[in-house]
Amino acid sequence: MRAAVLRSGNLVVDDVEDPAPGFGQVLVRTLACGICGSDLHFMRHASRMVELSGQLAGPLAGPSLDLSRDVFMGHEFAAEVIEAGPDTVAPPAGTVVTSMPVLVTFDGIVPLAYNNDFPAGYAERMLLSAPMLLEVPNGLLPQHAALTEPMAVGIHAVARSGIRAGEAALVLGCGPVGLAVVAALRLRDVEPIVAADFSPARRELARTLGAHEAVDPREEPGVEAWRRVDGRRTLVVFEAVGVPGMIDSAFRDAPPGSRVVVVGVCMEEDVIQPFFAIAKELNVQFALAYDPTEFAGALRSIAEGEIDVTPLITGTVGIDGVPAAFEDLAHPDAHAKILVEPG
Amino acid sequence: MRAAVLRSGNLVVDDVEDPAPGFGQVLVRTLACGICGSDLHFMRHASRMVELSGQLAGPLAGPSLDLSRDVFMGHEFAAEVIEAGPDTVAPPAGTVVTSMPVLVTFDGIVPLAYNNDFPAGYAERMLLSAPMLLEVPNGLLPQHAALTEPMAVGIHAVARSGIRAGEAALVLGCGPVGLAVVAALRLRDVEPIVAADFSPARRELARTLGAHEAVDPREEPGVEAWRRVDGRRTLVVFEAVGVPGMIDSAFRDAPPGSRVVVVGVCMEEDVIQPFFAIAKELNVQFALAYDPTEFAGALRSIAEGEIDVTPLITGTVGIDGVPAAFEDLAHPDAHAKILVEPG
Repeated sequence: MRAAVLRSGNLVVDDVEDPAPGFGQVLVRTLACGICGSDLHFMRHASRMVELSGQLAGPLAGPSLDLSRDVFMGHEFAAEVIEAGPDTVAPPAGTVVTSMPVLVTFDGIVPLAYNNDFPAGYAERMLLSAPMLLEVPNGLLPQHAALTEPMAVGIHAVARSGIRAGEAALVLGCGPVGLAVVAALRLRDVEPIVAADFSPARRELARTLGAHEAVDPREEPGVEAWRRVDGRRTLVVFEAVGVPGMIDSAFRDAPPGSRVVVVGVCMEEDVIQPFFAIAKELNVQFALAYDPTEFAGALRSIAEGEIDVTPLITGTVGIDGVPAAFEDLAHPDAHAKILVEPG
Repeated sequence: MRAAVLRSGNLVVDDVEDPAPGFGQVLVRTLACGICGSDLHFMRHASRMVELSGQLAGPLAGPSLDLSRDVFMGHEFAAEVIEAGPDTVAPPAGTVVTSMPVLVTFDGIVPLAYNNDFPAGYAERMLLSAPMLLEVPNGLLPQHAALTEPMAVGIHAVARSGIRAGEAALVLGCGPVGLAVVAALRLRDVEPIVAADFSPARRELARTLGAHEAVDPREEPGVEAWRRVDGRRTLVVFEAVGVPGMIDSAFRDAPPGSRVVVVGVCMEEDVIQPFFAIAKELNVQFALAYDPTEFAGALRSIAEGEIDVTPLITGTVGIDGVPAAFEDLAHPDAHAKILVEPG
């Protein structure tokens, strides 16, 4: 079957071996898979990511990943059941499903993305774990169900922040993660939600997803915009850019006693001035991923129309279009989420 | 009167003008004043501290401090009332008092330390605000009451951490701040409390103040010691060293999902790897100072014998001895807290 794989630092499309489902596993046909900013990050920082993961002790040490072999990616997907493995209870063939991107094997839990052995969402077919399948409800389009994963990231970060009604939010960066945070804040009736991004198109998306104000930080820093539209409620700042300097900038700008949630993933060394955070007694919550309940909640919110993901989808490609789509995503003003439809 | 002042980067002892109490103010005779690590930090980083304070907007902008003029320091004190200002209700002369180190004036609130105009604890006499005076109870020695301020820093950091019974604590650094954190943790019956410091004398002090285990991090990293003696409870890590690299080291070592409380004041730029904090979803609470309730609580805990500060006092000098005492404090193994007795 066809798959887009990371080979020697480049994305290439090639034939790869068809996977065969074992006990507890289900073979599915990928219907739609979002391209995630993490994938672009990973392409750029793969060796550093592997090195840093290796430095983390214990269960977080990360999978052993061999960058000299092909690497499978694509972890935001919806798929259609083809067949279950031996002695495995699964929904009937043709059922549209999504799943957290992990596969349970006899050798342990494998992430479906950034692994050498199991095709993920940029492949025509892949294996999922039967107990983790979530049926896509309400006739929801698989293209929309594929956005369950990024929306779950936003829902998780907002849950982690502990933000309550009556508090204000500032979202720095309106890429897919920042937009998911905006949508999740809106679900909780947070007001005002102020968003900041250089790109006019992304600011427009932030407004569509629920931001009450969206500003260009070169013209008006996000915190100033919050002061203008509110300035009284306790502020929670969501850092959703993930490049060096953003954490320090949030420390510098955040009002005294506020909370900073770091949901952007900065893979590089970063410089901070602890003094700013100390003098203001900031609380900083680092957030990653989601739990199964949040993942299922994201799917439900999309299916029930509480989150409209339609405007997030700015492009669709086949597997052959994946390498070019990665290049297009370097221009944030043209795109938010590009979907791969391997079929 | 005599005072030790910071002049052109050096501590010198000289005659300064006697202060006269205005409305709401009380003239007091300084009985004892602790030398704080912040004062040593300040001597080393004064211009940087002034520059960074200037970058903080609004009410946190800090006092305008002129480093070309004499700077008064000494903010951990007990004193004896001499006389109240006009129309001011105050305890009678001879009453032993302590106070949060701030003075209310018609021009605003002045910190009693790091200001150009109002002598602080390294002077024979100073002004305090009548409404802020706390009488030293139970015949407590002024030398012990002077440690109210550093103990309040520990009580505040522990309160900020939200640590609960059933959670474990690791305290990195057993200078006066780290030791105050240990004492405050013991007050809350936290167990185990693991402390880490290079200095054998400071490790011994940590044990005296309530640490269940104290290790040399060159021989056994603090987190490893926690694993050895407990390893099961949720861990709260208190960073009480305040030099570059410590925050990143705490990020690297802290177990997944743990909380890091930064109570050491690092005045320099610092490099972190956000990836470690993100992958483990750490929560980082920066803590500074205390509130009036915590300050009064610290005095009460010392007076009632819940915290025995006696072993912390490793030296006593007169005003003339302040410059030499600052140099002695550069050798952490010889000293914890040196008291100045200006009388």
